[in-house]
Amino acid sequence: MISSTTNKQVKFVNALVKKAKTRREEDLFVAEGLRMCSEIPKDRIHTLYISEAFSKTKECKALRESVKHIELVTDEVFKSLSDTQSPQGILALVKQYHYTLDEVAGASQKTGKPALLMVLETIQDPGNLGTILRAGEGAGVTGVVMDANTADIYNPKVIRSTMGSVLRMPFVYVENLHETLKELKQRKIRLFAAHLKGKNAYDLEDYTGDTAFLIGNEANGLTEETAAMADTYVRIPMEGRVESLNAAVASSVLMFEAARQRRNQK
Amino acid sequence: MISSTTNKQVKFVNALVKKAKTRREEDLFVAEGLRMCSEIPKDRIHTLYISEAFSKTKECKALRESVKHIELVTDEVFKSLSDTQSPQGILALVKQYHYTLDEVAGASQKTGKPALLMVLETIQDPGNLGTILRAGEGAGVTGVVMDANTADIYNPKVIRSTMGSVLRMPFVYVENLHETLKELKQRKIRLFAAHLKGKNAYDLEDYTGDTAFLIGNEANGLTEETAAMADTYVRIPMEGRVESLNAAVASSVLMFEAARQRRNQK
Repeated sequence: MISSTTNKQVKFVNALVKKAKTRREEDLFVAEGLRMCSEIPKDRIHTLYISEAFSKTKECKALRESVKHIELVTDEVFKSLSDTQSPQGILALVKQYHYTLDEVAGASQKTGKPALLMVLETIQDPGNLGTILRAGEGAGVTGVVMDANTADIYNPKVIRSTMGSVLRMPFVYVENLHETLKELKQRKIRLFAAHLKGKNAYDLEDYTGDTAFLIGNEANGLTEETAAMADTYVRIPMEGRVESLNAAVASSVLMFEAARQRRNQK
Repeated sequence: MISSTTNKQVKFVNALVKKAKTRREEDLFVAEGLRMCSEIPKDRIHTLYISEAFSKTKECKALRESVKHIELVTDEVFKSLSDTQSPQGILALVKQYHYTLDEVAGASQKTGKPALLMVLETIQDPGNLGTILRAGEGAGVTGVVMDANTADIYNPKVIRSTMGSVLRMPFVYVENLHETLKELKQRKIRLFAAHLKGKNAYDLEDYTGDTAFLIGNEANGLTEETAAMADTYVRIPMEGRVESLNAAVASSVLMFEAARQRRNQK
């Protein structure tokens, strides 16, 4: 049992929690909590850390049988590993996912359904990114494309707010967003930009074919260059004195409108 | 100019930022940032605090002419007042709003539009509450009803994420949510509960009449007792392995569906 916070492994986990660079170099990320850890494919788990208190639970037994590398730590040490205020006592180091643009854009083909992609430009709030993944999975989004300035999807705050969707949703960071948008166009995916200049309200467009929504930065929206590449601008009509919506809310309104249209078309 | 963090006024602002009890006793709340402070009705401003740096800006001159009580503080002192990491140098103490249930439920009557109410049971995340107010104003929500266990709407985090909507949206905390729901029913407002048991997908119900959406706690949803008072359960159909949505996302999907129906009915 690890009982000291100066232990090498403890320092390694601390670095993975805090530093995107370490996560990238080690090709690992940290996932916390019983539900999240139960959903991770077992062959992706590098090490499972459990607290002494958690090791005595029924839930722990099932996990012990299926996971190879388990490390027991004192409750005190577990607190120092955890990124949350009231840790559940279970945390996993997980191998990162690597999808190609081809896999992300083409994921829907396996199911025979049209694509529904979210293209995120410089989304910076981890909570927003995580919420877009979670709500996106619920709305039937088939993949997420992000520019290099979008928050790190392996940030523990993002992981937590995805509620497990990060384990299932294909995603990719791209170096050149404009080149990527050209590729999506070549695949006949229609690009819709959420934009104040939109002529039509968002619910008057048709999202039953291959669709991508372009969502911009929380403070500044889409850059002009990126917005200009869209096939269509769509507007979310707003009452009162509200000028814009939270990025996760705007995304959700669009994603669930696409889901509604696809459901009612059947 | 206030130059010490031990100044009495500085301590007063600190307490208002941190403690719901102090805010309630003093009948004040704290609003930060230029945009927010510019939108506050001038007669509601108790005191405006500005940093030395901000006092030299063009924007400051306009405010100086319209606000009576202004206090200048050093940039260093301003940092200790502020709840944000990079403060803009402007912060207001604002008189709290007090609406009755009658005003909140009846707000739509002035405009001749049907009511669109959000009823929140134990929403605990300040960001979620603020986002519901902001998105709600955009979707045409006419009032927000909260039980006593919902987060304090005057928490600086809520205020910030409302982006000013808190200044315009009628809201009320109620001691007895079930009594309040009975009153809403007597007013012929239809109560829809977002609930996994919903038979119909949310978009198959009609929200063009007087409508209230019941939204439950982030972790546990609506209590059985509260859900049982709804006229109709509605379900947001979900794909993948997503079991529930973030409370602000679920609220937004419902609110903007109501807005869509009302727009397209015209």
